[in-house]
Amino acid sequence: MRDVAILGVGMTRFGKFLERSLKELAREAVDAALASAGLGREAVQAAVVGNAMAGLMSGQECVRGQVVLREIGIGGIPVVNTENACASSSTALHLGWLWVASGLHDVVLVLGMEKLFHADKQRSFRALAGAADVDAIAAYPETRSMFMDYYADLTRAHMRRFGTTPEQFAAVAVKNHWHGSLNPNAQYRNTCTVDEVLASPMIVEPLTRLMCSPIGDGAAALVVVAGERARRVGGRPVWMKASVIGSCKERGADEPEITERVAGRAYEMAGIGPDDVDVVELHDGSAPAEVIAYEHLGLCPAGEGGRLVADGETALGGRIPVNPSGGLIARGHPVGATGAAQVCELVWQLRGEADRRQVPGARVGLAHNGGGLVQGESAATVVHVLAT
Amino acid sequence: MRDVAILGVGMTRFGKFLERSLKELAREAVDAALASAGLGREAVQAAVVGNAMAGLMSGQECVRGQVVLREIGIGGIPVVNTENACASSSTALHLGWLWVASGLHDVVLVLGMEKLFHADKQRSFRALAGAADVDAIAAYPETRSMFMDYYADLTRAHMRRFGTTPEQFAAVAVKNHWHGSLNPNAQYRNTCTVDEVLASPMIVEPLTRLMCSPIGDGAAALVVVAGERARRVGGRPVWMKASVIGSCKERGADEPEITERVAGRAYEMAGIGPDDVDVVELHDGSAPAEVIAYEHLGLCPAGEGGRLVADGETALGGRIPVNPSGGLIARGHPVGATGAAQVCELVWQLRGEADRRQVPGARVGLAHNGGGLVQGESAATVVHVLAT
Repeated sequence: MRDVAILGVGMTRFGKFLERSLKELAREAVDAALASAGLGREAVQAAVVGNAMAGLMSGQECVRGQVVLREIGIGGIPVVNTENACASSSTALHLGWLWVASGLHDVVLVLGMEKLFHADKQRSFRALAGAADVDAIAAYPETRSMFMDYYADLTRAHMRRFGTTPEQFAAVAVKNHWHGSLNPNAQYRNTCTVDEVLASPMIVEPLTRLMCSPIGDGAAALVVVAGERARRVGGRPVWMKASVIGSCKERGADEPEITERVAGRAYEMAGIGPDDVDVVELHDGSAPAEVIAYEHLGLCPAGEGGRLVADGETALGGRIPVNPSGGLIARGHPVGATGAAQVCELVWQLRGEADRRQVPGARVGLAHNGGGLVQGESAATVVHVLAT
Repeated sequence: MRDVAILGVGMTRFGKFLERSLKELAREAVDAALASAGLGREAVQAAVVGNAMAGLMSGQECVRGQVVLREIGIGGIPVVNTENACASSSTALHLGWLWVASGLHDVVLVLGMEKLFHADKQRSFRALAGAADVDAIAAYPETRSMFMDYYADLTRAHMRRFGTTPEQFAAVAVKNHWHGSLNPNAQYRNTCTVDEVLASPMIVEPLTRLMCSPIGDGAAALVVVAGERARRVGGRPVWMKASVIGSCKERGADEPEITERVAGRAYEMAGIGPDDVDVVELHDGSAPAEVIAYEHLGLCPAGEGGRLVADGETALGGRIPVNPSGGLIARGHPVGATGAAQVCELVWQLRGEADRRQVPGARVGLAHNGGGLVQGESAATVVHVLAT
C-alpha cells in the first residue's frame, strides 16, 4: 500500500439552511477543499460521496453524488455513493484512502453532505428512524427518540457502575459549546454553564437537550492524494496513518465493544498508542457518549471518563483536547457530513490553522465516527489516525 | 495489486415476492454463494452491500447491509453500503475487488439485494424516479417513465441514423425470453415471437412492453477471494481481470459515450479486445439498449447491432452469446441485485455449470451494468471482465 495524504479540506458552516440545496452546500465545500489543496477540478480522478438520508429527505434516493458533482463541474470519473448512517463520510474516506493507497487513483475527492432540516419536521424524524433496523422499530412504536433512548440507557449504566454524575456529563456539553463558540463553522456558537445544561429541557432522563447533538444541514470535502504527489506539490499534507471500519457484531457474539475493537486496530495500523494522540474528534452524539468513548479509545481507564472531562483534561488547554471543533453537540451533526467535518478539523489542527481553538503543536490526531444502531450497538464505527 | 478470484456465487430467483423480506432474500443468496465457495460464514472478513431503493421502499434508509447481515449471522466485520442505482451491486463488486486486490482483506462478501414490488405501486414509481436528478424530473412532471422515454429517444435516433427496424429490436426480446426460459432463476420463463413482441402494449413509441425490463425482487451474492487463497483451497475460481467504473460526464464535456469509455479501459486492464470475449451479460434495460450496447462494447461496428441480433449471432449457439441468463428483460431487474446476478451467470458459464444455456467452452466473460440517468447519460456504468 502507498502512503496517502490529505492535501485539502473544506466545509460549509453547519446549521439550518432551508433555502440552500445539497448542490449548493456541496459546491461550497468542494471549492474550498480544492482551493486548500491548490488543485483544480480537472485534477480529481475519482470521487466517493457519503450521504445518509437524501432519499427520504428529498426523494433523491440514488446517484446522489453524480447529481451533485456534475452540477458543480466534475464528471466522467468513477463515482461511488456510500452510506453508513452517521458514519457515511468517514466510510467514504476509508474508500478514498483505499483507492489511493492501492495505486488505483492519485487524487480522490471525498464528499460528505446532508440536509436534515425540512419544512415538514416529520420527514426528518422518519429519516433518522431509518438508521436502525426498521423492523425492530416497528415492534416498539412507543420509542420517542431511539438514539437518545439508547444513549440514556448507556448513561444510566455508566452512572450505576462508576458513579458518574449528571454534572460530569454536563461538563462535556459546556466544553463542546465553548469550543464551538471559537469555531466559525459551528452550528451553535454560544457558551453555556453546567447549571444551564442541567436546567435545559429533559429529552430522556438524564439527557437534557443541551447534552444532545442537533440535526443540521451542511457539507464537508477532503482531497486525498498519493504521498508521492503530495511531496511533489508541496503544500501542507497531513498523512493518513490508519483507516479502519467495523460493524455491529453478529447476534449473540461475545466481543469487545465496537469502538474498542476498531480503535485497537487503528492504533496497531498507525503504530501508536492512545498516549501519542494530541487531539481527538469523536462521536459525541450525546454528552455521555463522549465520556464513554474516552474510555473505549483508551484516553483514560474505564470509569474515569467523567473525572477526565470535569478536570478539564479534554478541553482546549488540557492534556488531550477532544472535539475542539465543538463536536456533534455544538459544531453540529448533518449526518452524512459529520465524518468528513471531523477530519477537516483535524487537518486544520495538524496544520496549525485552527486559530483560536488551536491545540498547540498538535502532530497526531484521531477521528472517531459512529453510525446507525442495530440491536443496541453502533452499526458502523470508523476510526482514522492522521499525523503531520 | 493482487490476483483476485470469485470463488462462489448464489442468487434467488428473481420475481414478485410480496411475502418475502429483504433479509430472507439476502439469506438465500448468501447461503448459496458461501456453499458454492465451500466456505462458512466465519470466513467472511468484510462485506460490501449494494442496494438502491430500500429507503423509499421500506424506510430502511441506512445501514441496510448491517441490518440484513447481522440477521443472517454475519457481523463484527467491516461493512460498506453502496449505491449506484441499477449499477449498485457491480459497484459493490468493484469495491470488493479493491479490498482484496489491495491486500486489505482476503475474503469479501459482495451482496446485491432489492425489493421493488410493494402493495402500493406508487411507491415503486417514486423510488425509480429517484434514480435521476429529482430536480430535473420536477421540472418535467409530464414524463411518464423517464427511463423508457430515454430509451425511446435513443431508439428513434438509432433507427433514423442506421435504419434499424422494430423487428430487429423485437429480436432482442425474443432471444432474451428464450434464454430466460432456460434459466430456473429467471423472472419470466416463457418464450415469445417477434409478432408477439411487436403486438404487446406500447409503452413509449417504439418500445413495447415485452421490449422493456420489468421491476422485481431478488438478491445475488458473490464471494471474492485473494488469488493465493483461491489456489490453495482449490474449487473452481473465476479470475477478475478487470473492474472499471465510470460516471456521467461533466456538463458540456465532449467525450465518447460512457459504455465506450468504460469498456475501453476494461479491455485495456484485462489485456484483451472484444474478439476475445466468449459470453456477455449486458444492461438490456430495454431491447434497443442491448443493440446499442453491442456497438459501444465493440461486439460489432456502429450501426450493425440490429443485424447482429437478427442474424442470431448473439443468441445461444451464435458467435458471441449475449445475456444467456435472459438479461434484465427476462431474468429480471431488481435494481440493486442486477449487477451481482450478471456476474453469477458469468461465473456459472465460465465454470461450465450453466446447464441448458451453457455457452460451450466459454473462457472469457464480460459484464456491463448501467445505473441511473443524469442529463441524458447513464450516471454510473461498470464493466467487469472475468476469465477462467
